[in-house]
Amino acid sequence: MSTKSVVLTGITTTGTPHLGNYVGAIRPAIEASRDRSVQPYYFLADYHALIKCHDPERVRQSTLEIAASWLALGLDTQNAVFYRQSDVPEIVELTWMLACVTAKGLMNRAHAYKAAVQANQEADEADLDKGVTMGLFNYPVLMAADILMFNAHKVPVGRDQVQHIEMARDIGQRFNHIFGEHFVLPEAVVGEETAVLQGLDGRKMSKSYDNTIPLFAPERQLRKLIMKIKTNSQLPGEPKDPAQCTLFSIYQAFANKHEVEEARRWYAEGIGWGDMKTKLYEYLNDHLATARERYEALLQEPERIEQELRAGAAKARAHAVPFMQRIRESVGIRPLGR
Amino acid sequence: MSTKSVVLTGITTTGTPHLGNYVGAIRPAIEASRDRSVQPYYFLADYHALIKCHDPERVRQSTLEIAASWLALGLDTQNAVFYRQSDVPEIVELTWMLACVTAKGLMNRAHAYKAAVQANQEADEADLDKGVTMGLFNYPVLMAADILMFNAHKVPVGRDQVQHIEMARDIGQRFNHIFGEHFVLPEAVVGEETAVLQGLDGRKMSKSYDNTIPLFAPERQLRKLIMKIKTNSQLPGEPKDPAQCTLFSIYQAFANKHEVEEARRWYAEGIGWGDMKTKLYEYLNDHLATARERYEALLQEPERIEQELRAGAAKARAHAVPFMQRIRESVGIRPLGR
Repeated sequence: MSTKSVVLTGITTTGTPHLGNYVGAIRPAIEASRDRSVQPYYFLADYHALIKCHDPERVRQSTLEIAASWLALGLDTQNAVFYRQSDVPEIVELTWMLACVTAKGLMNRAHAYKAAVQANQEADEADLDKGVTMGLFNYPVLMAADILMFNAHKVPVGRDQVQHIEMARDIGQRFNHIFGEHFVLPEAVVGEETAVLQGLDGRKMSKSYDNTIPLFAPERQLRKLIMKIKTNSQLPGEPKDPAQCTLFSIYQAFANKHEVEEARRWYAEGIGWGDMKTKLYEYLNDHLATARERYEALLQEPERIEQELRAGAAKARAHAVPFMQRIRESVGIRPLGR
Repeated sequence: MSTKSVVLTGITTTGTPHLGNYVGAIRPAIEASRDRSVQPYYFLADYHALIKCHDPERVRQSTLEIAASWLALGLDTQNAVFYRQSDVPEIVELTWMLACVTAKGLMNRAHAYKAAVQANQEADEADLDKGVTMGLFNYPVLMAADILMFNAHKVPVGRDQVQHIEMARDIGQRFNHIFGEHFVLPEAVVGEETAVLQGLDGRKMSKSYDNTIPLFAPERQLRKLIMKIKTNSQLPGEPKDPAQCTLFSIYQAFANKHEVEEARRWYAEGIGWGDMKTKLYEYLNDHLATARERYEALLQEPERIEQELRAGAAKARAHAVPFMQRIRESVGIRPLGR
């Protein structure tokens, strides 16, 4: 292991990356992958995916699309370790070791679990645990193992995930206390305010609202989706307020300062919605064209993606296997006769 | 895999085997290990041990002593697969897969967990989950993985463990329903009434009562412990009731029919407690001498035990690794490009 600070990020493999994911998470992570002053770890969280997704084809397809997207966008796999969680099964073994020192009471307080209980309360369910699996309930322990396995110093997260990092700290500290100092205690790094992109209907772009634009939608589909973006009923020629406009907000998330200023002028001059949609489409299409070509080429050769992931897993396991050996020995699992 | 019916038994590695373990569990299991009409699996449950034992030296020592005891007593490792649970880490991976389809509500009803909650209730604890770890709470899921991994048909258990086998059935059935028919649904086999041996104080011999006689106590210690067994205050010469006597009950658990009849006569004739203790000591000492010698020789060469366990693990993994590969593929964890 290098002595660089380890920064770790997981991506759950249950969906197709959309523009909102790109602006909020993928783009900053890809930029960060080039930061040679740190050691980034990025992983496809397929064990996590199984918690909410029991559709094997979707898990597989999502793994493929996410890996292809990140590689197509120029993830620096020389600097960052890019791996599939399930290629490092030592992580689930560590999960068990951690579970044995984790108070159940801690998990009772986890947001995701509490939200499920509250939903059952509101629906007047007699069984407050209805629909809650042990996967969901154990999820913060698995996440702690993801983080502690690689002695990650920093975990960039949204505000809603800070609690899980605190839990990973608690769990790591408890283990260290009982079995010796094995784990670095991680810190959450909360971005100033993760960029949120608006979706087709003006709400936050999110799979759960079914209002997304896939990051690498083919040209025709991209055009069609942009044409569907909701606008108000102002006519061409009327000056328009960019602050209230989904088209503008998406444009702004991609354009540079100069281009944004230009777009403001179009709004002041009363650009028609149809024209603005065409401009946005052309701009995005141009912006994404090169990466999309790479993406499509990768999808044609999934073996190349597989190769990249295996190379990443080999790097991850070069740390995880001997580290797990030490953890096993610390709890008493040792070859006899030594 | 052979087509023989698989019979699976786990032994938690947290203590030193005592005479009660021997009579109630080890002796019948060792006899069963020779039954060539079935495929027995015996494993040292060290992942389970971590739930209740955070003392690494004790886990290691117990693994050593249990493995040495079973081998010394003539466990048939040609027929039975004898392995250490942690040598088959695929088991914890399967535990995660199963957790993702296990209702938390099912675990809320597990006996061991409910007993802990009740103890907290009785102690007027505000936090009913006090002292409960996620290891304890997850324990039936790990046990389901132990069983389902090897498609065990039969699991010999005490009455208190029947619920866990039913849970393993439930969990296996649920997984089969979602992801295809992968698991055999196990059946609990409850012995007519597991033999219970009395301890030094006349209560059931159990580590928790601190009234045990170690199975392979050295001669001096064995003698000393037997001399400490509680008797009543009847004098030599008075006829005695064997039914009320701990000495007799222990003797009976080892002696043949003819020898038991003989002992009844001693009681009728008023044998003194001191004499009966000497007889019991001599009988046990003889009975256990050969195995104890083998046991002590094995403890001198732990590498031989390690070798046996590795050979067992190799057999277990010859099944577990390809089986787990199929389970992974069934949930969507597959190499890309196939």
